Amino acid sequence: MANVRPVCSSGFAVLIVCLLYLPLNGPAQETKTLSVMPLPAHAIQGKGEFFIDGTFGIVLKGYTEPRLERARQRFLDTLSRETGIPLWREAAVNQPHFTIHTAGPSLPIQQLGEDESYRLIISPTDVQLTAANPLGVMHGLQTFLQLVRVTPKGFTVPVVSIDDTSRFPWRGLLIDAGHRFVRLPVIKRNLDGMEAVKLNVFHWRFADDLGFHIESKRFPLLQEKASGGFYYSQSEVKEIVAYARDRGIRVVPEFDMPCHTGSWFPGYPDLGSAKDPSRSRAIDPTRESTYKSLSGLIEEMTTLFPDAYFHTGGDECDFHEWESNPRIQQYMRTHGIKDGAALQALFTARIQKIVSDHKRIMMGWDEVLQPGTPKDVVIQSWRGPKSLADAARNGNRGVLSSGYYIDLNQSAAEHYLVDPLGDPSAATLTPEQKARVLGGEATMWTDIVSDENLDNRIWPRTAAIAERLWSPKEIQDVDSMYQRLAVVSSKLECYGLRHRLITEEMLERMTGDSNPVALKILADVVQPPKLYERQELRTFTDFTPLNRLDDAVPPESETAREFDGIAKRIASGKATSEDWQQAQQWLVLWRDNDAKLQPLLTRSFLTQDLAPVSRDLSQVAEIGLQALDDLKESRLVSADVRQRNIEFVKSSERPQAVLLLMVAPSVEKLVQATRTQ
Amino acid sequence: MANVRPVCSSGFAVLIVCLLYLPLNGPAQETKTLSVMPLPAHAIQGKGEFFIDGTFGIVLKGYTEPRLERARQRFLDTLSRETGIPLWREAAVNQPHFTIHTAGPSLPIQQLGEDESYRLIISPTDVQLTAANPLGVMHGLQTFLQLVRVTPKGFTVPVVSIDDTSRFPWRGLLIDAGHRFVRLPVIKRNLDGMEAVKLNVFHWRFADDLGFHIESKRFPLLQEKASGGFYYSQSEVKEIVAYARDRGIRVVPEFDMPCHTGSWFPGYPDLGSAKDPSRSRAIDPTRESTYKSLSGLIEEMTTLFPDAYFHTGGDECDFHEWESNPRIQQYMRTHGIKDGAALQALFTARIQKIVSDHKRIMMGWDEVLQPGTPKDVVIQSWRGPKSLADAARNGNRGVLSSGYYIDLNQSAAEHYLVDPLGDPSAATLTPEQKARVLGGEATMWTDIVSDENLDNRIWPRTAAIAERLWSPKEIQDVDSMYQRLAVVSSKLECYGLRHRLITEEMLERMTGDSNPVALKILADVVQPPKLYERQELRTFTDFTPLNRLDDAVPPESETAREFDGIAKRIASGKATSEDWQQAQQWLVLWRDNDAKLQPLLTRSFLTQDLAPVSRDLSQVAEIGLQALDDLKESRLVSADVRQRNIEFVKSSERPQAVLLLMVAPSVEKLVQATRTQ
Repeated sequence: MANVRPVCSSGFAVLIVCLLYLPLNGPAQETKTLSVMPLPAHAIQGKGEFFIDGTFGIVLKGYTEPRLERARQRFLDTLSRETGIPLWREAAVNQPHFTIHTAGPSLPIQQLGEDESYRLIISPTDVQLTAANPLGVMHGLQTFLQLVRVTPKGFTVPVVSIDDTSRFPWRGLLIDAGHRFVRLPVIKRNLDGMEAVKLNVFHWRFADDLGFHIESKRFPLLQEKASGGFYYSQSEVKEIVAYARDRGIRVVPEFDMPCHTGSWFPGYPDLGSAKDPSRSRAIDPTRESTYKSLSGLIEEMTTLFPDAYFHTGGDECDFHEWESNPRIQQYMRTHGIKDGAALQALFTARIQKIVSDHKRIMMGWDEVLQPGTPKDVVIQSWRGPKSLADAARNGNRGVLSSGYYIDLNQSAAEHYLVDPLGDPSAATLTPEQKARVLGGEATMWTDIVSDENLDNRIWPRTAAIAERLWSPKEIQDVDSMYQRLAVVSSKLECYGLRHRLITEEMLERMTGDSNPVALKILADVVQPPKLYERQELRTFTDFTPLNRLDDAVPPESETAREFDGIAKRIASGKATSEDWQQAQQWLVLWRDNDAKLQPLLTRSFLTQDLAPVSRDLSQVAEIGLQALDDLKESRLVSADVRQRNIEFVKSSERPQAVLLLMVAPSVEKLVQATRTQ
Repeated sequence: MANVRPVCSSGFAVLIVCLLYLPLNGPAQETKTLSVMPLPAHAIQGKGEFFIDGTFGIVLKGYTEPRLERARQRFLDTLSRETGIPLWREAAVNQPHFTIHTAGPSLPIQQLGEDESYRLIISPTDVQLTAANPLGVMHGLQTFLQLVRVTPKGFTVPVVSIDDTSRFPWRGLLIDAGHRFVRLPVIKRNLDGMEAVKLNVFHWRFADDLGFHIESKRFPLLQEKASGGFYYSQSEVKEIVAYARDRGIRVVPEFDMPCHTGSWFPGYPDLGSAKDPSRSRAIDPTRESTYKSLSGLIEEMTTLFPDAYFHTGGDECDFHEWESNPRIQQYMRTHGIKDGAALQALFTARIQKIVSDHKRIMMGWDEVLQPGTPKDVVIQSWRGPKSLADAARNGNRGVLSSGYYIDLNQSAAEHYLVDPLGDPSAATLTPEQKARVLGGEATMWTDIVSDENLDNRIWPRTAAIAERLWSPKEIQDVDSMYQRLAVVSSKLECYGLRHRLITEEMLERMTGDSNPVALKILADVVQPPKLYERQELRTFTDFTPLNRLDDAVPPESETAREFDGIAKRIASGKATSEDWQQAQQWLVLWRDNDAKLQPLLTRSFLTQDLAPVSRDLSQVAEIGLQALDDLKESRLVSADVRQRNIEFVKSSERPQAVLLLMVAPSVEKLVQATRTQ
């Protein structure tokens, strides 16, 4: 970030282009060097910088409203944090060199597809931000904040002309407060993070089999019997809805039904399918009284959530409960319902009618899409882009979540390259059908995540998903994404998120040591296993303490990713001298770390099982150093030794202590690159 | 903290003593190994540990009230953070092995001198906390939280029997929100910190010459004209008073008068002494209308602050303003008032009467103590323990702040060894007179501190002052204090304070680098100059951005302190082999750091002036390494070279970039220890 030079650093022709703000080739090239996420649709960089100092002032022109005033004050607060200059107070009285022009209001209830575009023009002397409505203004302010950097002369933003608009209108983050209650400050700071990367839908899920975490006044036994006292009061819900609106974010509530509803029955056993309400997990879809209750609940909840969409879940029904209930079986036979899926379809149709009666549009997971499903129902796909393309062809709109499951510890690159329109069959959609693919949602399931490490799972990787949903389709350069992600990650911490910090705090707690250097070195190169393997290696309930290393480390090891790049370059003969030096330094660090770490690991019950991981890291590094030396000297190695080393490294790639040693595959590449005698 | 062994580790007799909970020798010895601050008055350690796991439960017995319920929930929240076990929810349903016995209520408005004692008995199977009232309960819960540590078997607290009570009844922290407005969340987390170390008075100062930061409804132009829009609303004040009460903390407001009042006159020019209200800094004490207004303001403020004490400042009057006003001069002549001090004394007497009329006891700085001052006026001494002893002899009660000015970058040890009864003349006080010395207050003046680095100046050093005010006088072991301070510092971060974190964040911002290792190495061994020297080296106003290295680093370098201990042991021939090794490692690190750091320093305007400091560190370390080698080899060195080295090191001890290179004096010791040919 520091020592930023103007992009147009050489060449007369280029310089002219920049000064005139003429466009360069494509969006990806134009904007490559702007360290922002998501990258703007169009940006043309100029020469010079705009300085931010104690004289900074900002003014609202055109349409204004209290929300814009608050956005301005929040902007000043954040800019103050970014610079250490107390602008939150000063800028009120300074001469404004930053002018916001707002043409008019946005809708009283934020709607899908409202204009979110903005134009941000930064010259060396002033800044002009123009937008049709407050939504665009808020996005433009976030872009400006991300551009702030420190230079030899002061805090600056580069001279640039940005014309920005979103590719998809539905850019969401699901936070599952059903498995684990997520406290209000955590929700709030994640809404701040969403605002920073221009996400505009907060999908808030409230209940699952073990917890019901929102207050119902009509059905108070829901929260009273199944929240342990921890639920969102209705006034807190309203507070969050207002907080989100202030940030250009819609709030879509989810009440998952008819399954994942075990928590509903301790209070209202008649709703359940099993005789023993404590065992029931599914709503009984065969009783009229069920629909009367659900209509009451949905009606009550629509008073809290003004958004046009209302999510009723519908995923992963286990039909065994219905099939083992004689009364439900009888009903199915009487009404000619052939199986559980057909029964769920009838249930869905009833619920859709209720939701519609309460002036909302139903949204549900893949399963709710059946031949008769009304066309206005929005499908959220956990199955993949193909099912989304099929729905679009069929006339239903949809939102992609498959590929954006950020609880599964995949890499940012994996998520980044998933496109809601990325299925081959999407290519054959008409423009009208394509428009039914509304966007996507990152999903933060909380089966094995807590308030504490939630940020660490959501950020920074969700910024890559946000870019996929906002920026032009062509922007796909993974290296550029990772470079910018590192910058945005720091910004997000400055804005109040705790994704990096929490790892340090958890390592401190694990060891009782205020600076556990040796454990940090190990933590830096391990990751929890991806997808659902973690659950196979460790038993988790919704109440398991999440205080071990697999909970503490980020889902993606940055160091391992960088080391892998170096290892690949070395193995393919393309390495620079810095690559060789860096590889050597890291391998020595890892080799020698075990001797320091082992005695410390014995001191805490939370670190004892890390002993073999640390030992493996040391041995793998030793093998890596040998391979490095062999490659450097072009030495031929014994086939036997080489084979044994490969086998050892491979064996170290299996999970231990619910962790993967992420540098092992890179060392394997180095050994593979050596040649035998 | 880790690998904790029972204190009674050997010896049959000792073991028996422990099992029977019989007292050992004196308080200092008994409690030496408990990593808590303040150390309890009496503690006897036993054998074994009490385990904290998912089965932990806690119950209130005896007297109860909502405040106790909230304290219990807050305790569970903190214990959850300390362990990562979601006890905040679980402990509600678990079997309680922790029982709180509260005999009765405390007073509706917390009073000076209320019983704060508690008894905490931890056995391997259960915990009993007993207290006369909720104040003692809250203190006992904090002691328990500080005892929690991670061990090879789990999270535990040691078996111990604690009987604890405070030495002084007035243990305060002043936060000056007059110079710089301090936001609510910052106030709140510092109240949390106060609770953790058993401080019980929050002295909240609201106004100074440039800002008036609390809402008056009777005199709204105070905040409207002099707060820039940033002031505490009356409902926020009430919220803080309630928040403090929940933590066993009284809130004493300060409205400093008749001087430091420049911010009062833009709104109410008639109150000022100068013709031009924008220049006036002092209230006009000669008009009757002044007292009418002040009575109105004080009356209004007593509705917000229920505490029995009301602070009216009175410090540092510059009488020039009165002396240059002909009308005031005329008044003084007419009434036979010989000088400004006499006029202030008359003013003080009037204010004392007003405060008293509104059912409050006046408190003021040293200056308010005059021959006729009523005996119930409490003196806060910035002049020192002698003035406090004099006041006590004279019949006035007092609180010490001299020696506890935590804004002046002194060491924890310096503050720790200041005793409110430490003046030689205090020894001759009668017990009754001694009891008039109520305690002390750490003072956080905000002339050159912001919301951001406030925590970094208050903590952890204030814990040392808290121990001085709570623990028995005999507890004075500085080494033990520093060992425990390191543990408490980590705990405080876990409780939500940001004193260590903020340094990292500020270094990141200064460099635009997410992990500026080389700058951290330099930052680790520098300090801002002590006392008032900093203001001589850099210009500060109440609005200066505080974003440089002297703002970012803690007031006391831990590394330099440790290195100094090692250097002293080496110089005096008492070093261990670990000492030699550590000294060598550090000196090599510092010597080599400059080459890495210099190119980075040029990239940011906030680091450019650090170049000579980094260079000096390198050269001083080089000299230190040479001295280390000479000492190790018992080599005789050239007197010339030795002299030149000493001179260089001495020259590096002068402030540069408003920073002191704290390891230089230690290197000087090493060089001084070498012998010449």
